[in-house]
This record gives sequence, structure tokens and C-alpha cells, in this order.
Amino acid sequence: MSNRDFEILETKERVLADNDKEAQRVRDILNEKKIVLINLMASPGAGKTTTLVRLISDLKDRYRIGVMEADVDSDVDARTVMAAGAKVIQLHTGGSCHMDADMTRRGLEGLGVDDLDIVFLENVGNLVCPAEFDVGADKRIMILSIPEGDDKPLKYPLMFTVSDLCMVGKMDTAPAFDFDMDAFCRRVHELNPAEEILQVSARTGEGFDKLEDWIVSVIETKKAK
Amino acid sequence: MSNRDFEILETKERVLADNDKEAQRVRDILNEKKIVLINLMASPGAGKTTTLVRLISDLKDRYRIGVMEADVDSDVDARTVMAAGAKVIQLHTGGSCHMDADMTRRGLEGLGVDDLDIVFLENVGNLVCPAEFDVGADKRIMILSIPEGDDKPLKYPLMFTVSDLCMVGKMDTAPAFDFDMDAFCRRVHELNPAEEILQVSARTGEGFDKLEDWIVSVIETKKAK
Repeated sequence: MSNRDFEILETKERVLADNDKEAQRVRDILNEKKIVLINLMASPGAGKTTTLVRLISDLKDRYRIGVMEADVDSDVDARTVMAAGAKVIQLHTGGSCHMDADMTRRGLEGLGVDDLDIVFLENVGNLVCPAEFDVGADKRIMILSIPEGDDKPLKYPLMFTVSDLCMVGKMDTAPAFDFDMDAFCRRVHELNPAEEILQVSARTGEGFDKLEDWIVSVIETKKAK
Repeated sequence: MSNRDFEILETKERVLADNDKEAQRVRDILNEKKIVLINLMASPGAGKTTTLVRLISDLKDRYRIGVMEADVDSDVDARTVMAAGAKVIQLHTGGSCHMDADMTRRGLEGLGVDDLDIVFLENVGNLVCPAEFDVGADKRIMILSIPEGDDKPLKYPLMFTVSDLCMVGKMDTAPAFDFDMDAFCRRVHELNPAEEILQVSARTGEGFDKLEDWIVSVIETKKAK
């Protein structure tokens, strides 16, 4: 551990035959420890880190929170979420544009999860590749920010198909953009009728009560098992 | 060709030994025909298509413009740029998160370039993988939109390193965001001192005079060779 107070782990992708088998290994670890893992996915700059900072601030007195920051490079996000009060590890993906289950398991081992209730994996900013890999998480949450536009379900359908919850982020900036919320929700539900959609703003806090109720429910359901 | 008036070509990635060799094949085609190819890259929703629509509208009376729309799925962008007055082909990448040189060559063949002066490749929306592949283009242009934030050069350094021109897009929305332009430019130039940075808005037209001067210079330089 360096003087930056969190570890940087090089989790370059290894070519493994069976990601599903590795994902089951992750689930076994999580189930044994009764820890929730959330796979948080979005485009670059959609607001993943800002969302985590607010979640950590709101939930840290109630739950012990860990964050795995996956990036091609840099540790700026790890510094930010650590300052908010989470236990953090920075994962460098060695150029890989996504996390897979093996990288995630190594991240959990590096982070150390014995003292945690929930871990957020902030995936690499990318709407394509992260959707293709089951990392063994309990839930997949995606953010689609208002500036990206309401047509994104048409162009990146897999991300909307595999996620359990879609946050429509940066709602405070909606007046500056032409975003058709009805068309967006219709496009999402054509791909994934079960997906929950929450309108949020990490800047103003809009929608975070519902988001946090959703996350608390996932944690408590797992604890009660 | 279907009744949609443009072709959809399935350009799934093939595992080829040598992308650089394929990129040279693309360059040979472009040089023989004296056509410019621009590789346009950005995050999902950064404004690639809107930028192309304005460029086509402004330049179509002076140059014959082709567009290759690369997407994992859908043909919404192809319809949009065709309506603006470009010759268009839609490339479906078969799940691939980027274009490589072989896919680009097949795209050029599908589009047909004998009657064109310039071709724009609208790459898959992604700040990671497209940066890793030389597709044989004359120039690489990237867009970083204001809502994505000024820290992106730290997190996606390769894209800023390999591009010739960085458009800072959606400048009309700057009042709604905290974007430190000086810090952004400094971060870009630490990675790539030669990179040109232009502040633009495809909605208002801000900065398009300089952008078009830049593109015209690339076209005329190639014609003069």
C-alpha cells in the first residue's frame, strides 16, 4: 500500500475459457460473506463517480461501503470516493475496456471484503463491452445521462437489456437538452420490460431517496437470507 | 440495397494478424482515389452525428461527402446523415466496440468511393477501444462534450494521444456544467502537445467556421499532392 492510502491493482484481462464459471466464484464469495456487489456501468462522464459520492455520503453511517474503481488509467476517481468515506481499491484494466468476472474476483481479494456490507464496482466508462460480461454482481445498475440523448437504447441495446435499474442522470441539466423521457422509457421497456427507471441528479439529490430505498432493499434482502 | 436507400453491411471483426498492414491497404485505396478519410470518435451521445449533419449541410455544395455509420445496432444515425445530403452506408459491428482497418476497408468497398471527395467514419461511441485501432484514416478527430467533464484526458489518455483534433462539443450547454477549460486544455497538451482544440456547438454553429477551415485544408492538401 502506497502513501496514497489505497491500493492500485493491475487487473489486466486474462483469457479464460469460462467467464460464467468465474462469475459463480464471485457469487460464492459474496454469498458466503453476505455482501452485495453492484456493477455500476455508464458512458464516460455520465456521472458514476458523482453518484457514488452522494450514495456513500448518505449511506455510510448505516452500511460499510467498499468501492472498486476500474479505469484504464489514473486514480482520480479512487481519491474522490475515498474522501467521501468508502474503502477503496483502484483497478487498472491494462487497456481493457471492461471488467470481467476474474478481474472482479481479484479486485475483491485486493479490496478485502470481510468488513463490508456492500461493494460498488465502478466499471470502465463504456456502454458496449461491460454489458457483455457477467462479473458475478447481485445487481447491474446503469446510468444514462440526459446529455447523451433519448435514442441510446436503440444504439446500445445490450446495456439496457442486462441492467436491473436504469438511472436517468443529470436531471438538473434537462432544460438545456431535448430529451424525450416518454420515448426513452418506451425504448428501454421494449428491450427490458422489467427494468426500473429512476430520474436522478447527483448534483441536487433528486431521486436519491428512491435510489437508496432500492439499494437498501437489496442489502437487507441478502442479509435476511 | 433495401428500400431504406442505404446499405447495411455486417462488418463483424475478423481476427487478423496485422491491423497495420490492413491500415496500409486502406491508405493505398484513399491515395489512389485522392479521397480523405476522417475517423470520428467520441463517447456515446457526445454529438458525433449532430456534428456530421452540420458539416454535411455546410460543405455538401463544395465537396462530395460519404459517411460510414458504425454501430453495434440500429440505423437511426444513417437515416439522419442521409437526410442531410451525404452518401451513406450503415456498418453493423456484430457486437464489436470499435472499427478496425479491415472492417473499414470493407465499409469503403460497400459505400463505393469513386464519386467522393471525403468520407467520415463515425466510429462506435466509445472512448477506449477505437483509439487502439489505426483504420488507415488521414486524420483522427475526437469530440469531448462539455457534460462529460474536464477530467477525461486523465482517464482515457490514449484517445487524446492519438487524435489530431479535439472538438470540445456542446459549448452551448456550458453554463449548466462546471467545466474547467484551462485545466482540460492543459491535460490534453500534456498528452499530446500537437493536438488542436476547437470549442464548438453543433446546435448553434459556434466554432464550425474553424472546424470547416481545418477539414477543407486536409481535403485540398490531399488533392494537391
